Amino acid sequence: MNAGVGSNLYIGLVHYPIYDRRRDVVATAVTNFDIHDLARCARTFGVEGFYVITPLESQILLVQRIIRHWVEGTGSIYNPARKESLSLVKICRTIDEAEGEISSSWGKKAILVATGASNHPGSIQFSALGKMLKDQNTPFLILFGTGWGLTQEVKESSDYVLAPIGGMGYNHLSVRSAVAIILDRLLGDRLSSSE
Amino acid sequence: MNAGVGSNLYIGLVHYPIYDRRRDVVATAVTNFDIHDLARCARTFGVEGFYVITPLESQILLVQRIIRHWVEGTGSIYNPARKESLSLVKICRTIDEAEGEISSSWGKKAILVATGASNHPGSIQFSALGKMLKDQNTPFLILFGTGWGLTQEVKESSDYVLAPIGGMGYNHLSVRSAVAIILDRLLGDRLSSSE
Repeated sequence: MNAGVGSNLYIGLVHYPIYDRRRDVVATAVTNFDIHDLARCARTFGVEGFYVITPLESQILLVQRIIRHWVEGTGSIYNPARKESLSLVKICRTIDEAEGEISSSWGKKAILVATGASNHPGSIQFSALGKMLKDQNTPFLILFGTGWGLTQEVKESSDYVLAPIGGMGYNHLSVRSAVAIILDRLLGDRLSSSE
Repeated sequence: MNAGVGSNLYIGLVHYPIYDRRRDVVATAVTNFDIHDLARCARTFGVEGFYVITPLESQILLVQRIIRHWVEGTGSIYNPARKESLSLVKICRTIDEAEGEISSSWGKKAILVATGASNHPGSIQFSALGKMLKDQNTPFLILFGTGWGLTQEVKESSDYVLAPIGGMGYNHLSVRSAVAIILDRLLGDRLSSSE
């Protein structure tokens, strides 16, 4: 089950519960570019699985259609590298469902890590989380928010909240950029780069 | 002119000359998500300017329309943070034109750095380029390819080619993810993160 480097790490892209710009709690729509970019990052950094989390039936059907096209359909012949990355995508209706799936396959509760652009009291630093990830016997699920971010409730019910990326007084990266940077900071030293 | 940290660095998103999947040289279409994600990264990391490089009139008009909407139009009221990042976007028809614009405003030739997913003989490492960027009196333009990447000719006519990001035998990040990771590796230590 734990077949290689990076394989104790899972990422989840959360579409509910999410804040909108007025801080109302909503379910956001799935963005095609998110699925592709995060799957490609996940594959690059040896992430074990990428959960798209949405309770909306229409959005689940959309994600299934995207995956099918690239993993089984004509897309898989057009671009085999895309097949490889999109094979990592799984769909769950809730964060609990994703966590439960990981925990039961490992026989061990997955550690939940929330992320966000703002400061959170007691947040964990990149270096500390990076060290914890080296314990290959414990599964981790890092949650990324869409829209205006994960709700306070999700952060408080997670085991850890990761420190924000920061940014010269401007904290408005896309979730696609944030995932790329966070995975590189946590797992970049596992890459075969000559750096 | 050199008004602050990061201000000697420019990024360029190249749409011509670019390889397509058959390694033919083409002009690629502009992707709306690229403009937004790269502009937001540029603003986050204190990049001085973001050049969208395309010779195609239709694509220039498209980029102008996107910028206008977010910098002057209703988008600027809807989302002022987006206005701030998209204000960094400039349009040039060629790499030479972008380089010339930077060089003439600095009275000093800009150093061109090409990027790519594959190994290039004599490429410069992230740490070495990061150190060079600290020379705030010299402007740098880092070029990112769309499609299947920058042509060999562009790489050879650049001053440096940056080492690839690497990735467990899989090198198929989106340009959006690659830009985020590269800027973080080069400039991440300038951020006000508590890390």
